This record gives sequence, C-alpha cells and structure tokens, in this order.
Amino acid sequence: MTSIIDETASSPVADSPARALVCRGCGAEYPLAAQHACYQCFGPLEVAYDPAALARVTRAQIVAGPQNIWRYAPLLPVGQDPASRVTLDPGLTPLVSASALAAELGITAPLWVKDDSANPTHSFKDRVVSVALTAARGLGFTRFACASTGNLANSVAAHAARAGTPSIVFIPGDLEQGKVITTAVYGGDLVAIEGSYDDVNRLCSELVETDEFEDTAFVNVNVRPFYAEGSKTLGYEVAEQLGWRIPAQVVIPMASGELLTKIDKAFSELVEIGLVDAPAGGWRVFGAQSAGCNPIATALHKGTDEIVPVRPTGIAKSLNIGDPAAGLYALEAVRRTGGWMDYADDDEIRAAIQLLARTTGVFAETAGGVTTAVLRKLVASGRLDPSLETVVFNTGEGLKTIDAVAEQVGPTHRVKPSLRAAREAGLLG
Amino acid sequence: MTSIIDETASSPVADSPARALVCRGCGAEYPLAAQHACYQCFGPLEVAYDPAALARVTRAQIVAGPQNIWRYAPLLPVGQDPASRVTLDPGLTPLVSASALAAELGITAPLWVKDDSANPTHSFKDRVVSVALTAARGLGFTRFACASTGNLANSVAAHAARAGTPSIVFIPGDLEQGKVITTAVYGGDLVAIEGSYDDVNRLCSELVETDEFEDTAFVNVNVRPFYAEGSKTLGYEVAEQLGWRIPAQVVIPMASGELLTKIDKAFSELVEIGLVDAPAGGWRVFGAQSAGCNPIATALHKGTDEIVPVRPTGIAKSLNIGDPAAGLYALEAVRRTGGWMDYADDDEIRAAIQLLARTTGVFAETAGGVTTAVLRKLVASGRLDPSLETVVFNTGEGLKTIDAVAEQVGPTHRVKPSLRAAREAGLLG
Repeated sequence: MTSIIDETASSPVADSPARALVCRGCGAEYPLAAQHACYQCFGPLEVAYDPAALARVTRAQIVAGPQNIWRYAPLLPVGQDPASRVTLDPGLTPLVSASALAAELGITAPLWVKDDSANPTHSFKDRVVSVALTAARGLGFTRFACASTGNLANSVAAHAARAGTPSIVFIPGDLEQGKVITTAVYGGDLVAIEGSYDDVNRLCSELVETDEFEDTAFVNVNVRPFYAEGSKTLGYEVAEQLGWRIPAQVVIPMASGELLTKIDKAFSELVEIGLVDAPAGGWRVFGAQSAGCNPIATALHKGTDEIVPVRPTGIAKSLNIGDPAAGLYALEAVRRTGGWMDYADDDEIRAAIQLLARTTGVFAETAGGVTTAVLRKLVASGRLDPSLETVVFNTGEGLKTIDAVAEQVGPTHRVKPSLRAAREAGLLG
Repeated sequence: MTSIIDETASSPVADSPARALVCRGCGAEYPLAAQHACYQCFGPLEVAYDPAALARVTRAQIVAGPQNIWRYAPLLPVGQDPASRVTLDPGLTPLVSASALAAELGITAPLWVKDDSANPTHSFKDRVVSVALTAARGLGFTRFACASTGNLANSVAAHAARAGTPSIVFIPGDLEQGKVITTAVYGGDLVAIEGSYDDVNRLCSELVETDEFEDTAFVNVNVRPFYAEGSKTLGYEVAEQLGWRIPAQVVIPMASGELLTKIDKAFSELVEIGLVDAPAGGWRVFGAQSAGCNPIATALHKGTDEIVPVRPTGIAKSLNIGDPAAGLYALEAVRRTGGWMDYADDDEIRAAIQLLARTTGVFAETAGGVTTAVLRKLVASGRLDPSLETVVFNTGEGLKTIDAVAEQVGPTHRVKPSLRAAREAGLLG
C-alpha cells in the first residue's frame, strides 16, 4: 500500500495537519501509510503533526464544524474533506452532570460522566473506527477488518454496511450474545476464534501479512496509528463541553491502555496550541481495570515498567486484553500527571453499574461499571482528590452486557391486572 | 392537581405557546392541567396553541437552540425555561441516507431512515417522556409512572433516575428481558402485570383515580396530552434536516397510532406558520403494523371507521396495543393525505431487520423491522410511489430485541487461532 499522501483516490487529504508516522520507541519517521511498527526497533508508530498547522486551529473553526467528531478534523490525520469520510458520524456525546453520584461517593467538586454509549453503535469505538476506515479508504483498501472484544466488531461491521464495503471481523468465541448478533446482523463475514482476544489479535497479525489480505485494512493492526488518533476526540470534547477547560482529574478504563494515552495527548495538544489553559496544578490521569485483567495496574502498584501478560477472566470482556499494547505509555501518563490506577472485581463492577444507573440515568456496560467502581475506590483510598473536578468515562452501553446485572435486578412486584391485586401487593400504600 | 399556568413551582412556563386542552371529539376547551379526557363526551384531549405565538417562531430562533428537542420549545407546551426541563436531552437523531436500501426495493427517489434509536434510552419515547415529565413537574407531581410495552418503561425509569424523582413503571409480564433489565437497573419500582399491555393500561387508568396515586404522573394517562406533543419533534426534525422541506411520503409504525398523527400535525404546523413550503401534491402518510396486531390497518383495508380491538401476538411487542387510543385519528390522517397502511408478519419483520442493517448500518428493533417490511410491501403493491422522496421511521434499537434475529444471524465461521485453521476454513481464498 502506498502513502496516504500519494493517493489519487477521490479522497483528498490536502489539509491534513498530519506530517508523518513516528516511532514511539526510537523516534524514527515514516510516511503516512499502512504501517504500524518501526522497521528499526519494532516499536509502535504514532501520528505526528505539523505544529504550525495545529497552531492555526481556532475555537471558532471547531465550533462552526458539524455536531460530531469531524468538528475536530483540523486536529486529526484524515477526514478534512467530508466526502472522504467513512463514518457513522459519532461523537459530541453527552457530558452528564453526576451530582447524586458525587454525593454518594463523597465527592464535593463537580463530577461528570462522559457518556459514550450515545455513539451510533453505542461505544467509543465508533470514533476510532471512523478515523481508521477513512484512512483505510484513502490508502486504497477495499475490505475492512478488525480483531475485537465486541464493541469494535459492532462498529466495524456497521461502518462497512453503511459504506457498502465488505468486512471480515474476528472475535473470541465466548463473546456476549448481544455483541455477536449486533455484528452478524450487518451481513459481513464474522469469524469466531476458539481462543482469547490475544489469540485473535495474534492471528490477525499473521493474516495481515498474507497476500490474500493485502486489500484488507485491520483497523487495529495495519492502520492502527490512524485508529488510535480517533480517541483524541474524547479529550477534545470534554474540554469543549466544559467551556474550553481541562478537568483536574479523569478516570479512564484500560484495555490496551491506548484510550488513556490519547485523552492525555488531546489535553496536551489543546494546551500547546493555546485553545485551553491547563488547570492549576495540571490534570491527573487515572486508569481503571478489572481484577480479572489488571496487568497495567499491577505494574504500577509494583512500581515497575514490566507488564506481565495475563490470561483474562471476569465479566468485563470489552477490557479483557491480557497483553496490552499501550500499557507502558499508560503507565507513563499516569506517573507523569500524578494519577493512579486501580481495579475492581466482578461483584464491585455489578454494583457500580447499578449505582451509576440509579444516580445518573446512564446504563453502562461492564467497562463503565469498572470505571465507576474504580472511581469509588480511588476516593476511598485518598488517591483521587474529592475536592477537584472529575470526569469519568463510560465507554459502552449496558444493553450489550445485560447478563452482568440480569440476576441482580428485575421487577420489584408481580401482580394480576386488578386494583384488588395491586392493593394486596402493597402498591396502594 | 391545578392548572400548569397557576403553578408556583420553580418552573415558569410564561413563554409557552400552548393555550388550552381541547377535546378532539366535541371541541370543548379546558385549562392546561392533568386531564386527558373530555368531561362532556369522554373524547381525548389535545394541546391547542395560540396561533399568534406560533406565527412568531422563526427558523433562526430554532437553529440557535440546543442540539436536541428543546430547540423546538417555542412549538411545545412546556420546557421554554431550561431549568424547568425534566429531560435526558433527546432528539436531533440522524437522518440517514439509505441509497442501498432504495436500490434493493426499487425506489428511485431519495430514501431516508430517521433513526431514533440514537436517543438516550434508544427509542423515540425519550421525546414524549421529556415533554410529559416536564409538564408533570410543573403541575406539582412528585412521582413518575407509565404503562409500557418496554421502551417507555426504559425512558421513564431513566428520566426519573436522572431527575432524582421516585418512579413506578408497569409492564406486561412477558416483556423481552432486555427491556425489563434496562428498566429495573435504574432502581425505581417496576411492576410486572400478568396480562397484556391493554390490561396494564386499564389497571393504570384505575390506579390514577386512587388517592394513593394523586401525586403520580402517568406519562401516558393523566398527562397524556402533553406526552403526545413530544412526538411532533420527530416531524420538525425531519423537515429541518431536509433543509426546511417536508418529504412527499413518510412511513410510520403504529401502536396507539398517536405517533403518526403527531408527525402529520407537526408538518401541518410548519406549513401554517410559514417555516416550510408543502411539497407539490402535499405529503402522504403511511402506517405500519404487525400482522399480530393490525386493528388500524384492518379498518382501513375494510373501509370502515370501526376499529375492532385484537389480542396481540407476534414479536413486535413494542407495537402490541390491541385497542389503539388514536387509531381513528391515524385513519383520518392517512385517508386525508392519500396514504395507506399495511402490516408484516414475524418472518417478514426478521428479514427486514437484517435488510435494514445490511444496507444502512442501522440495527433496528422489531418495530423498525415492521416499518421496513411495510415499506417494501407498499412499493411492491404500488401504494407508495417509488419516484417520490420518502422517509421511513426507525423508532427503536435492535439491541433491545436481539432474540428476534438470534436464530437468523451469527458467526459465519468458527476457527481455531492458527493460520492453518484459517486456511482450512477458506478464509484465505
């Protein structure tokens, strides 16, 4: 595949501020193409931008844009031309004031839930998929693919259906039924792998090297640097929705760890280009994992950079990445900003899903339960300052993981359809 | 309960364009209060507006409003003061271009899907609940309730949780698990009634008359006139999203029939106050029911005004109202505009859910399958003109009724995690 800049497809990217792919390990630079690892040190690649191009971006320019992630196109590597976009137009999801939740947890400053279940396929993955597939089409790929723990599968399949492009999606064989059907219904190929997500990911890394998959963009493999940039929009939106301010504390779920690093990157960019002022004392980044898959948090707790892969267990399947690709960078961001990481077990996750729903009206999937449970722990342990403004990220939709709370909640009364039966059931006082 | 105008609560409605409640049967007028039936003829009441107040509304005023239903507050009975709103801020859901679906059905003009699964609790019910509960709080009610086929239950429970107000929700005992859990998780009272929706509705009509429920607003019983007005926002949005134009044809699912009448009413209002021009030849309204619950369509097909109640069957549970309160008015709107009604059986509904997902990326619940299946039938029978612009309404989310397609779709391949297994499964050509 050739460089995205050289493409003669109908997708001009003339106004992209992206300059190159840069190795996060050794700093080597490469053109903006379908490459995700450094040829010299095998480190992961990241999109680098032209600082002058970013510096020209104004609040007014963003505010005049569409009511979705593409309002931030001047800060993204692709999608400047609306006709080039492969997208369901995700983003500008609600930032919900969570005062009742704050009161229950003993948080005295404003607390917000960034509710990304409001995206078209009901997870934050629509953001990264829109950016990845827009890059993929620009690079000439004609089939869309991914390795997924579920939400990504939903998003890639739906994007492909909307775009009229073939898709092939790879998932672990034990995924929640809701996520399987919500992928299969779009009609693309859906491959259930008898193994864990890490097995699925390894297989996809092999497939992408075959001739038969030369035309195929794996959103989180060969176009991963573009994909990862989509997560920045969550950070941009929070800052804009707070009135061009960065919150003092953010609590973010971790699977690969990439989302956390990109929200932190988004905040840094906004400060560097002068669109926001940093809060006094800077911002602190907190990471949340489940007890069944906590390799990054464990490394932090042990004070090491050595992230020991685990075989994930537990109900928070969308976070079950045992060998997290961006774990090191997540550790770096949390240490640099003075944050912390913690993890929650399945019972804590279930309780937190109910707590969040009852106090905010937001029904989160297990990942949102993880984040809310960890928020509670961070307050209790004193790691998170309850007197500072905090944003907690819900990245997915409770309807996709209803089994998590199916035994916990249900009808409070069962009654025959008569006033007498209602009275006997105690409904009339 | 007193008139909404007299309330001294913190919810001023000084700028409401609403003037009175008017009987749809005999035209008798009543103040804007918690009353849903005419004291003289027992006919249903509807909100009437001050024509001069509506005539002052401008496009610029609407466009300057928030990115949700409240941009249309100048055309609604309540919610003019943002502080008065009891709301999850629904609305401005996507109008999706459905060219691939049009091609498959033989429609040559633009075809659009208005995708109301994008609302906060993933159905159009968030619109009506936001308007009803804003009215309810203004009228002094301190508990929120409803009789529901599922989506309304989700919405009322979530609104109550966000507002910190107690709720009690009544559902039929055989509801889909997804809709039960997505209500129960918010922590209010949830009463499963051993009977049909019509049984639930009858019981609620009795409960609302008891002293014990004097403080309770049943969104679709005692504040129903306000509730119903929320559906108008679907019509306003379609017109605005098309560039202040009304489409030539709309296809709308029918349960009580009220949604259809209110979208038609919204179009009429926009023309009357000069915000849009009517399409040449006017607009035609089409209604969609399931074969298991088709009393309104059957009356149309028989050329009668007599709607014979049925005991509903079939998978489209959110449309299973056997004794439709607004059926007569739906018949009137369809006849007056030169539209038609039809119905689809369960197999047709399942096939249409998949067709819609595969061609548009929209995963609809069974009600959306009904509407898409009926669209297909209307084209085939020549009742809908394939050369005229058409909007089809998806009112709910596929994740809530995954059982409907669980046996139809699933993984296309099951493979061990190795390149060799992938090759043997035919994934490498």
